[in-house]
Amino acid sequence: MKKYKAYFIDLDGTIYRGKTKYPSGKRFIDRLKKENIPYLFVTNNSTKSPADVAANLTTNHDITTTPDQIYTSALATADYLITILPPHAKIYVIGEPGLCEALLNAGFNLSSDTDVQAVIVGLDRDINYEKLTVATLAINAGAKFIATNRDTNLPTERGMTPGAGALIAAVQTATQTTPIVIAKPESPIMTGALKRMNLQKLDVIMVGDNYNTDILAGINNDIDTLLVYSGVSTHEQIQNTSVKPTHEVETLDDWQL
Amino acid sequence: MKKYKAYFIDLDGTIYRGKTKYPSGKRFIDRLKKENIPYLFVTNNSTKSPADVAANLTTNHDITTTPDQIYTSALATADYLITILPPHAKIYVIGEPGLCEALLNAGFNLSSDTDVQAVIVGLDRDINYEKLTVATLAINAGAKFIATNRDTNLPTERGMTPGAGALIAAVQTATQTTPIVIAKPESPIMTGALKRMNLQKLDVIMVGDNYNTDILAGINNDIDTLLVYSGVSTHEQIQNTSVKPTHEVETLDDWQL
Repeated sequence: MKKYKAYFIDLDGTIYRGKTKYPSGKRFIDRLKKENIPYLFVTNNSTKSPADVAANLTTNHDITTTPDQIYTSALATADYLITILPPHAKIYVIGEPGLCEALLNAGFNLSSDTDVQAVIVGLDRDINYEKLTVATLAINAGAKFIATNRDTNLPTERGMTPGAGALIAAVQTATQTTPIVIAKPESPIMTGALKRMNLQKLDVIMVGDNYNTDILAGINNDIDTLLVYSGVSTHEQIQNTSVKPTHEVETLDDWQL
Repeated sequence: MKKYKAYFIDLDGTIYRGKTKYPSGKRFIDRLKKENIPYLFVTNNSTKSPADVAANLTTNHDITTTPDQIYTSALATADYLITILPPHAKIYVIGEPGLCEALLNAGFNLSSDTDVQAVIVGLDRDINYEKLTVATLAINAGAKFIATNRDTNLPTERGMTPGAGALIAAVQTATQTTPIVIAKPESPIMTGALKRMNLQKLDVIMVGDNYNTDILAGINNDIDTLLVYSGVSTHEQIQNTSVKPTHEVETLDDWQL
């Protein structure tokens, strides 16, 4: 079996499930630490800051984590925008603090009007008609349309509530414009993660529970993948895919580093 | 030329344009009145009551109109729901007063929770995440998903702001469920209009400026159509359609009753 120099690792469904601990997830990270193998948690979440995500892992899942080990779709969005916009460009954001913070830290000028170079849409539980209107008018006036992630739902205690993908669909319908999407299974988040870790595609493996996000992100970017059957994807679903994950395990305990 | 016993007539782009009067629109209605030919204004608007729409025609466009001459997508939605739900059924509504009023008048019980038999989504400029969430959870729990109309935009002084179609796309994405759509070009609004006027399809002609709503509504329902080039659709667009309107005129002055 090939030895990978570094790991990109999904969180929910892979290392824990909501508030539920996965002991195999903790053991997997402990083994990586023991062998000094670098890893980066790569998550489609755009609402939380890396500090919040790291604190959740450290406090609620006994996995001591620092913010620099977290790569969210918000950070990936900021990294992508740096490559296509001039410094301090004016942008309009539909999103929560995690996204706004990442974009401010990258030097962008968060505007409340339609005279902007890009519109960024992520999950925003304070969505309203005015925000949808400003985004629509700005994109129709020529602003680039960037979406953090297409996740259709957010798992909550009430059930599956609308995800970023729902708000993006609203703006896409109102503008008849297809956004550039940053997060898994799209490429920008993988490009950004490789750059941040200073890695080549051959060095790394993407680990996750969701074929349609984690595994396709690897397949679309020529990065090897490890599907763990601890979350979303089932054996039956994988049997029906034309391109399989590079590796599959029932639990991360079954994976040899 | 065939003589039609009755007319279904679109409003914006056909009889006026926003706040702009169309003298040919007024003359057309005057001729129908003079010849005692019955007509019904059939509009995808779900936010205004028939009384408001009639008042706008009477006051701002010098076309004296009574509320019973107006058939909105809100009324058509209520008429449709009566055919599929028991009396006084509990429903959840994302919509403005015109829609809520029509549904209350039809005897439905407007709920604020997810335990409902149907979710109705129209344009709602007070949209928020909680409304999208209740709609999503209710549909996932088995409620029918009904959409007033798919109009992607609302023409305003600020530009093309998001229409009902944008909000419907959000709920559709979050539920992975396709709604039953009531308004033009779909069938329920035409079925409802025929029933309200006690007419047969052969008796009537649908008049409008928009091929994708007005004209397709006629084509989809075996109702003859008259396209007037005073609004959305252009000659070039019509040349590229496979099924043409029954009749086409530059202005309603060119149409002989």
